[in-house]
Amino acid sequence: MTASPLPPGSTIGILGGGQLGRMLALAAGRLGFDVAILDPEPNGPASRVAAHTVVGAYDDPEALAELAKLADVVTYEFENVPAIAVEKLTELGAPVAPGARALAVAQDRVEEKTFLNGAGAPTVAFIAADDGESAREAVAALGAPALMKTRREGYDGKGQMWVEHAADAPEAFNKVGAKPVILEAPADFVRELSVIAARGRDGEIAVYPMAENHHEKGVLRRSFAPAEVSKEMAGQAERIAAQVLTALDYVGVIGIELFELKDGKLLVNEIAPRVHNTGHWTMDGCEVDQFEQHIRAVAGWPLGPTHAHAKVEMLNLLGKEADGWAKLAGEPETRVHLYGKRDAKPGRKMGHVNRLKPL
Amino acid sequence: MTASPLPPGSTIGILGGGQLGRMLALAAGRLGFDVAILDPEPNGPASRVAAHTVVGAYDDPEALAELAKLADVVTYEFENVPAIAVEKLTELGAPVAPGARALAVAQDRVEEKTFLNGAGAPTVAFIAADDGESAREAVAALGAPALMKTRREGYDGKGQMWVEHAADAPEAFNKVGAKPVILEAPADFVRELSVIAARGRDGEIAVYPMAENHHEKGVLRRSFAPAEVSKEMAGQAERIAAQVLTALDYVGVIGIELFELKDGKLLVNEIAPRVHNTGHWTMDGCEVDQFEQHIRAVAGWPLGPTHAHAKVEMLNLLGKEADGWAKLAGEPETRVHLYGKRDAKPGRKMGHVNRLKPL
Repeated sequence: MTASPLPPGSTIGILGGGQLGRMLALAAGRLGFDVAILDPEPNGPASRVAAHTVVGAYDDPEALAELAKLADVVTYEFENVPAIAVEKLTELGAPVAPGARALAVAQDRVEEKTFLNGAGAPTVAFIAADDGESAREAVAALGAPALMKTRREGYDGKGQMWVEHAADAPEAFNKVGAKPVILEAPADFVRELSVIAARGRDGEIAVYPMAENHHEKGVLRRSFAPAEVSKEMAGQAERIAAQVLTALDYVGVIGIELFELKDGKLLVNEIAPRVHNTGHWTMDGCEVDQFEQHIRAVAGWPLGPTHAHAKVEMLNLLGKEADGWAKLAGEPETRVHLYGKRDAKPGRKMGHVNRLKPL
Repeated sequence: MTASPLPPGSTIGILGGGQLGRMLALAAGRLGFDVAILDPEPNGPASRVAAHTVVGAYDDPEALAELAKLADVVTYEFENVPAIAVEKLTELGAPVAPGARALAVAQDRVEEKTFLNGAGAPTVAFIAADDGESAREAVAALGAPALMKTRREGYDGKGQMWVEHAADAPEAFNKVGAKPVILEAPADFVRELSVIAARGRDGEIAVYPMAENHHEKGVLRRSFAPAEVSKEMAGQAERIAAQVLTALDYVGVIGIELFELKDGKLLVNEIAPRVHNTGHWTMDGCEVDQFEQHIRAVAGWPLGPTHAHAKVEMLNLLGKEADGWAKLAGEPETRVHLYGKRDAKPGRKMGHVNRLKPL
């Protein structure tokens, strides 16, 4: 990373031109930065609010060279950034934040949980398996039912299934794609929570209040924040966030999904080395939202405050739900955020609303 | 104006690519709109966060035709939009908001004050003059000293001077450019205030809390909002805003500069048919800021709430002051807004900060 904070007028590169890239670009714009998007598509949501777009694959050396020429620092909106992109960009003088270690950990569920436990962040019990037979042994060892997930890729509930009996494991292994998997013991959780946190280039850490999250069909539907949690639980989450961020020598915003167990203990479900859907509430509930916070961190700026000034219910607008914009825009307590996507495919995240109440 | 609200994905045209255009574009982006800028310069602050830029003069028929092809509705960031632009764009199916009447009134100080008084919004006494001799007569009639301003153009204190004696009027007339002028009686004011208000396409009116403004060398330096004013005075300002907006059949955000007299009466100093520097505090003090409010209005959307959730001191960053960004970014109570301007000429508005306190 460069030593001094990036001055306004510098260019922030963003790998990925979807809604997270768009909201990052809008935040960068507020601070006087230019943005350069790299995306295989020329005219995505982020490109339409960015000064520059490089059209190309994320592992295309020419596209990466073009981005490196434009950008003073590069970040990303999704965790499946190819390692080659980080190497190439760094080599060409456009450092990538968060860095290679965070990406490596986030791209492989076995690496992720191994890292988390090593960093003092508890997870469910898990075993890696590379074929149907080892998967069967893993389920037998963990106890059925167990959750099988591909080690790499898969999001919003894709690439995973429950294995009800150890004997079903080989068939499940084939169903999720006959690729290396992780078997996870069920988490007997009472709530899904998350914590959004940031670490600056100088090691400063800032943690937002926790969110309570509700998923439907594996996709986030609603977040409530600040979540109703005890001081003790907020402290647990803050400790977990600080341990993870420090162990990764992280720079930027991270999303940490948590399970709250019956006894009040928190387990980490997964980490996302980027701005996170469960942090969208900060756009209207905090003075500095997760997007500006991320830009501040990767630009080497001091982090902003994270306290909430309102209670927020964040609701994702999926597919045709975004067609309700006119009604939503007329609700005085509702702040509308739309991503400028043309095609409202079923289940596609088209926007979100934040409904505000006084704290 | 088109009959139904503009759906997200529509394109908002903006005449002018400076900081106001940039902040409008960022707000439009949040709501899922694309933005097309028309500006004589290709790469100004607004263009760098917009999907399209048409490079051309504001009265260039080809450029206007290109903008009309891109945009579903057109607005502007400055009041000196040539009448021909509004005619041409409207004719080509890209209606302009706020409309021609608001521009005509705002472009001529005599028209403006005549309109205001007719709409029941009091101003200082004034007389128009077209030459040095009539200027002398005007000062004699009003009583010296009187403030001479060119009728058209001039902003931030340019194109105006005090006339201390009626006999000095002819010389002053030549000094301000030998163009038609207005002579104004002094306003014996105790404070400069302003009110930012909006009117929707359906006639709905929303008024923000007032700001108290401090100028230096004719340029806005600081605003405090919500200003400490009596309920009665807030009511006066709201009535003035409603009268002005309704009389102009206005669509969009308006900035109304006010003088507070010793007896608590408000006079209108001037109106700006656009988002206004004294409304920048709303970016961090309100849920829906003046920029989103303006986009909502011109897109035919319902207006958003206008109450403040924080006390704000807005400070303009002029010229080299913006070089203090690193220190400002480190102040927890300070929200930083920078406009991406390359060249920090003395006095140039480079950005602003909003310093927040609990209400």
